[in-house]
Amino acid sequence: MSNRKINVTIYNEDYPDYHPEEVKEAYPNGIHGVLSEILEREDCLGKLRIATFETHREILTQEVLDDTDVLVWWSHKQQQEVDDRVVSMAALRVLRGMGFVALHSAHASKLFQKLMGTETYMLRWRVAGERARLWTVENNHPIAEGIPETFVVPHDETYGEPFGIPQPDELVFLSWFQGGEVFRSGCTWKRGEGKIFYFQNGHETYPVYYQPEVQRIFANAVKWASPVKRCCMVDRGGRNAPPMELANT
Amino acid sequence: MSNRKINVTIYNEDYPDYHPEEVKEAYPNGIHGVLSEILEREDCLGKLRIATFETHREILTQEVLDDTDVLVWWSHKQQQEVDDRVVSMAALRVLRGMGFVALHSAHASKLFQKLMGTETYMLRWRVAGERARLWTVENNHPIAEGIPETFVVPHDETYGEPFGIPQPDELVFLSWFQGGEVFRSGCTWKRGEGKIFYFQNGHETYPVYYQPEVQRIFANAVKWASPVKRCCMVDRGGRNAPPMELANT
Amino acid sequence: MSNRKINVTIYNEDYPDYHPEEVKEAYPNGIHGVLSEILEREDCLGKLRIATFETHREILTQEVLDDTDVLVWWSHKQQQEVDDRVVSMAALRVLRGMGFVALHSAHASKLFQKLMGTETYMLRWRVAGERARLWTVENNHPIAEGIPETFVVPHDETYGEPFGIPQPDELVFLSWFQGGEVFRSGCTWKRGEGKIFYFQNGHETYPVYYQPEVQRIFANAVKWASPVKRCCMVDRGGRNAPPMELANT
Amino acid sequence: MSNRKINVTIYNEDYPDYHPEEVKEAYPNGIHGVLSEILEREDCLGKLRIATFETHREILTQEVLDDTDVLVWWSHKQQQEVDDRVVSMAALRVLRGMGFVALHSAHASKLFQKLMGTETYMLRWRVAGERARLWTVENNHPIAEGIPETFVVPHDETYGEPFGIPQPDELVFLSWFQGGEVFRSGCTWKRGEGKIFYFQNGHETYPVYYQPEVQRIFANAVKWASPVKRCCMVDRGGRNAPPMELANT
Repeated sequence: MSNRKINVTIYNEDYPDYHPEEVKEAYPNGIHGVLSEILEREDCLGKLRIATFETHREILTQEVLDDTDVLVWWSHKQQQEVDDRVVSMAALRVLRGMGFVALHSAHASKLFQKLMGTETYMLRWRVAGERARLWTVENNHPIAEGIPETFVVPHDETYGEPFGIPQPDELVFLSWFQGGEVFRSGCTWKRGEGKIFYFQNGHETYPVYYQPEVQRIFANAVKWASPVKRCCMVDRGGRNAPPMELANT
Repeated sequence: MSNRKINVTIYNEDYPDYHPEEVKEAYPNGIHGVLSEILEREDCLGKLRIATFETHREILTQEVLDDTDVLVWWSHKQQQEVDDRVVSMAALRVLRGMGFVALHSAHASKLFQKLMGTETYMLRWRVAGERARLWTVENNHPIAEGIPETFVVPHDETYGEPFGIPQPDELVFLSWFQGGEVFRSGCTWKRGEGKIFYFQNGHETYPVYYQPEVQRIFANAVKWASPVKRCCMVDRGGRNAPPMELANT
Repeated sequence: MSNRKINVTIYNEDYPDYHPEEVKEAYPNGIHGVLSEILEREDCLGKLRIATFETHREILTQEVLDDTDVLVWWSHKQQQEVDDRVVSMAALRVLRGMGFVALHSAHASKLFQKLMGTETYMLRWRVAGERARLWTVENNHPIAEGIPETFVVPHDETYGEPFGIPQPDELVFLSWFQGGEVFRSGCTWKRGEGKIFYFQNGHETYPVYYQPEVQRIFANAVKWASPVKRCCMVDRGGRNAPPMELANT
Repeated sequence: MSNRKINVTIYNEDYPDYHPEEVKEAYPNGIHGVLSEILEREDCLGKLRIATFETHREILTQEVLDDTDVLVWWSHKQQQEVDDRVVSMAALRVLRGMGFVALHSAHASKLFQKLMGTETYMLRWRVAGERARLWTVENNHPIAEGIPETFVVPHDETYGEPFGIPQPDELVFLSWFQGGEVFRSGCTWKRGEGKIFYFQNGHETYPVYYQPEVQRIFANAVKWASPVKRCCMVDRGGRNAPPMELANT
């Protein structure tokens, strides 16, 4: 609502030794490269920071997290190697209002699973380049602004239900897959004061993040997840909070 | 729905060095003592096991958890000393269908916070023996069966909003406190296949668990949380699950 | 939870002049015929009453509704001709605890739409005999007891999102359709004290209600929707309800 | 998100023959007078229209509703006399994206009850000038922007649970009342494409709408309820929508 600029920090694991050819072809500047370009086109962007697996301990400090409105996370092969201290700090920042946009296989990241409470709870999947058809279930949701009723992602990894997530607060997109699966592909939750969006599409070997609908969803999601204030600390009254009413009854 | 007996395991920290006089007076046989008596009056009770802080590593084994339908948890002073391995096993069992009834300060237990994803997120509280008035918001909920529209707990610890929980799937009871606080005092969630109920009342220095309404709520909650099958493992298709439909299109 | 028998009343419009051949072939005794047979196999069945479009004004009286635990509703061509007085009485009974199981095109019935608050809000549909594949999203839900992770309805009417319903309290089944659609095909809500289940499958020209999985879902749903007490009237305190606490402060 | 101006239409029944002295003293220009002043201070306000009970048939036309982003509704004594045709048109506009802010006794308006599906379902109430204490449950919600953790409304009508509403999508404020009641006093829902906010405070004989916190909540709510586009019509495919995928399989 305010006109405050949104500080965004992107974590992309960008693991150099994994599938170099295929991934480089789809994302020559890394997935963080294209995600950055999408956000740089938005007037509301404040500071943009990038962390990769190799730099995440240095970049994702308490200071940076405190100065971040929305944390974007793409991860896959190195999920289990991410530093637990970073995960704890980031989770606590979400509880205090930092937005969190989790992309694709980030459903299995330590950070997402910690916030969902569903550690190790997985889903069906298959890398087969099948067609995905997304359906917009909430047409008036800010994340769906400008998105048609239905659109196709020509080739992507298939994910299938049952997806072991807590019931989403909002179900924005539902996906149909060529091979017979369905998936809750765009979901929101709140945890503490923080807003969380998960979006399923975007396997590293398909150029999904170049597709205009996906770019728009991503930019919308970052704006939606940004908090009212950078840090929504709540005064919970602490130890033996005094009664609010007894004095003046 | 079936007539299967319900296996219940109660964890009560029962820490001997904490407030011995006051607590012994309210609960001479421990809180697990009165909780056991409540359940033993129910026809549906199967095996009943008790674990305390001192025995929890020995009692709460994988084998026992696999044979448990509902885990009841009361804890307070020793929250942080509970074994992380036990917490992980118990959390995973909840995801696979074990019910979980968290009582009073168990909102700050490792297990509850792990399942909620809201580690370290607290609330207002005050030990002042104030009056609590509960209101039944969902009259037709199985946990509210036999409970009046409103009833009083004469003296209990006060908890107050904002309570840093994910939005409950169901809000069964809401509490008014003498000092000016309100609290979502009876809440349900699902995580994975497991059903979770949190109930606020029951500080260790007040005889709350002897009150008939509270006893009924507790017995109802254990029945409600019991799963359809002891272990609701889900076949999620595993690595590269084959397409369901491509073959027969 | 109790062993009380469940009184069920089925409304099936059973309109004799509509598609007589096709429908008679699929359901020679009417859809209410096969639904009755399913329930009669259950020990918990109490009184079973049948109403059709021609008899609904006589059968669905206040007295019968007051004696009904669960109302089942299948309707299609005569939706708009159902008596508004009957609809009002039935809606109020749901608010006071009567369960309501709405089948297939009953999403467009006056009663369902009144309870959802989404009058005239429709969906995509196509009678093309396509294959539907259902996915069980909540494996531990009583309505999913005994239902596999996924199963096929070989031929049914296709429904597609966006489905103009309020967000369900629980999403039990999600459907994939051969033609590219997805649909929230098994949903629960509570309205007042009443529990509501909507199930998508069961067009009148396909023998869907003879399929074992669908029969089990239907029987489970009737048991799930049955209230704790036949009439969960709530004492809301009426006009100028006296203060609960001022007297004894 | 966009910078589009928000067209607001206020319905205030403003019934001249009801309690003239008390109400005139609290609201010399009517409740719509003070609500208008609050909105006129906001840059984002577009057209502002006022309807009262006496003019509502003339003002609340299809044309005006189609040009309205958010409808505000305050009503009490003349609830049952509001024109059903107006109610139907307004309900359908909400389903197509118009926001709806229902104030105080508008919980019993035909429009609110139609959208909630809980016609005639009431609550406890008492006009006794008691103190209400509100608690902000969702600190990072746009409607709570600038609102403290807790604040007092010195004198207002008391409402009490059980409140016969469908579970809110979001619970933003919870109220404590001096006489022992609690109430879900700030709730959101979506119906169709429309966003709905209910706020409990604001009886016509107390100057509640002059209180800064309440003014801020009201202005925030109007902004929050405004849709992404003025009319979020959804292409639901109509009769026998063609298959999306069969053609290109």
